[in-house]
Amino acid sequence: MTTYAPLQNDTFLRACMRQATAHTPLWLMRQAGRYLPEYCATRARAGSFMGLATNTDYATEVTLQPLERYPLDAAILFSDILTVPDAMGLGLSFAQGEGPRFATAVRDEAAVAKLEVPDMEKLRYVFDAVTSIRKALNGRVPLIGFSGSPWTLACYMVEGKGSDDYRLVKTMLYSRPDLMHRMLAVNADAVAAYLNAQIDAGAQAVMIFDSWGGVLADGAFQSFSLEYTRRVLAQLKRTGVDGQIVPRLVFTKGGGLWLKDMAPLDCEVLGLDWTVNLGAARALVGGAENGPGKALQGNIDPNVLFAPPAQIATEVARVLDSFGTPYQGAGTGPTHIFNLGHGISQYTPPENVAALVEAVHRHSKAQRA
Amino acid sequence: MTTYAPLQNDTFLRACMRQATAHTPLWLMRQAGRYLPEYCATRARAGSFMGLATNTDYATEVTLQPLERYPLDAAILFSDILTVPDAMGLGLSFAQGEGPRFATAVRDEAAVAKLEVPDMEKLRYVFDAVTSIRKALNGRVPLIGFSGSPWTLACYMVEGKGSDDYRLVKTMLYSRPDLMHRMLAVNADAVAAYLNAQIDAGAQAVMIFDSWGGVLADGAFQSFSLEYTRRVLAQLKRTGVDGQIVPRLVFTKGGGLWLKDMAPLDCEVLGLDWTVNLGAARALVGGAENGPGKALQGNIDPNVLFAPPAQIATEVARVLDSFGTPYQGAGTGPTHIFNLGHGISQYTPPENVAALVEAVHRHSKAQRA
Repeated sequence: MTTYAPLQNDTFLRACMRQATAHTPLWLMRQAGRYLPEYCATRARAGSFMGLATNTDYATEVTLQPLERYPLDAAILFSDILTVPDAMGLGLSFAQGEGPRFATAVRDEAAVAKLEVPDMEKLRYVFDAVTSIRKALNGRVPLIGFSGSPWTLACYMVEGKGSDDYRLVKTMLYSRPDLMHRMLAVNADAVAAYLNAQIDAGAQAVMIFDSWGGVLADGAFQSFSLEYTRRVLAQLKRTGVDGQIVPRLVFTKGGGLWLKDMAPLDCEVLGLDWTVNLGAARALVGGAENGPGKALQGNIDPNVLFAPPAQIATEVARVLDSFGTPYQGAGTGPTHIFNLGHGISQYTPPENVAALVEAVHRHSKAQRA
Repeated sequence: MTTYAPLQNDTFLRACMRQATAHTPLWLMRQAGRYLPEYCATRARAGSFMGLATNTDYATEVTLQPLERYPLDAAILFSDILTVPDAMGLGLSFAQGEGPRFATAVRDEAAVAKLEVPDMEKLRYVFDAVTSIRKALNGRVPLIGFSGSPWTLACYMVEGKGSDDYRLVKTMLYSRPDLMHRMLAVNADAVAAYLNAQIDAGAQAVMIFDSWGGVLADGAFQSFSLEYTRRVLAQLKRTGVDGQIVPRLVFTKGGGLWLKDMAPLDCEVLGLDWTVNLGAARALVGGAENGPGKALQGNIDPNVLFAPPAQIATEVARVLDSFGTPYQGAGTGPTHIFNLGHGISQYTPPENVAALVEAVHRHSKAQRA
């Protein structure tokens, strides 16, 4: 058992466990990113995105940057969702101004047959970063580890890059579901090993980003995405290096229609995008006092951050009020973790993030008064 | 009152009115398009997309092309959703291999103030095409007219082209909702006039494509998209030049979470994308025997068309069965119009479309047996 500094702000972890907090905790997807000039400066020194992600010192530095500016309630490992297929040998790169790209795409039976759970030593740089960040945080806020979901990884592995129609990956899904299932099984076992190693390295919560689950048809989502998220969750460690429970968060962008299908998942938190009404989601899966249920995370439109501070505060209040007052008792009940419904835009004015954070803390305290 | 040849196949119109049919009617969004070599040949002769759309003979020719290949149950006007803002003076063009683009974007108060419902004479080429197509169809199947929704038009008018984050249009929405409401009101009145002129020219049904409604946050969708779709519908003519009722179809891509909000719309049909379970949608808004309700249109994933015919037939059966057997009585009840959940891909093999059409007719007849 490793010893780290005691946690000073446990609002995020408590909300994950559906326990009462004095305010609604918040963090922002992609909070360490290009909208921050200090991030751009570090990235320039690192030379490339992967240069940044694979260097422990740089990864630690950029993970902590948003915490220096804003009183956020959690940190998230700086990395990419595609590290796992990179470790499988597909050759991840990020061209300037473009999204991720794999040197090798997985498009036929032979390519799928070759896929294996990678040696986790190839991902040592991620686990080293987790430990380094955990130490650097020194107990300020908890550290979230993460991975892409098996389906989301498969999208990139087949397409070779981002896509606007998912034609190639869906062609495989509909034409050769057997190949798709084989790839997803490998991905799920790899993601589970990857997240467990992050937990061993010091992660205090883990999140599965099913960024592309929402592009699937009803029926296909359940078979090709949800089923493999379930397979990941079944293999995850329940406690971290400090003996504490490690909450598991699942976020399917565009998955609002399938909340009921996600309710039985063995995880603590469901992430929601901005299309979902938080009050309706709470009624559906938030659970009752001392009964089972999911904590909910989300879901403001990141484009709200392009409005002036007064409108940001209005929209923040609308999101918090749509969830309603979180549970305030001594046991467990419905709780809310404030976040964006998607990653923050690189064009966001940093001062508007300050306005958002302030509004969340202020209004969520007022809700409880 | 204009006289056209009597309609030989009324399955589409009957299904729109929630009346029984011997098979489930189908048509395909973007059925006249680049996946057909004969379309590409005509487009090459026309020189450009707008050259095609603005020429009555070419527009008629390509509209009828898919009907020569497949026993589809409806035709849809060949045109673009952005003709209305083009007529407002924004200067629509289609660069080779790219999406639509406006010469002038609408991004500030002055630009919004200048917007007006355009003189419908500027859109005469569309109405001429409608009349020409209606004549050329000679009663084979009904002709659907269409427009983009007020919100969808606004997305393009502000962004100036397609977008993957809708940052500019949402910046206006959240920063200056007054400007956005003004633009949407003009758009709604323009769309209503445009669709009414299509009805006068011979359209037998009209569809509003809210292609980008699904990118809005819960709450914003209701205020900035649905409300203006409602404003269009309130102004639409109820009968066509032949005295027949003109059904109105509304399709919000990504709008599955808001079906209940759409139920009170004064329209006959709601379109659904592939994320929606048709059985659940039927239970929610499909109505009961002889009670009010919406006919449902959709919703197979267009990427199914990249699978071999046997898998296409399986997926077609799955979609038809998820709706269940449509109403078969003498009055009105839940009905289904088969379609894709989005426009057909330009890469689709034409022979796979034949397999899909055959499977829909065959399986939907079997459902009723």
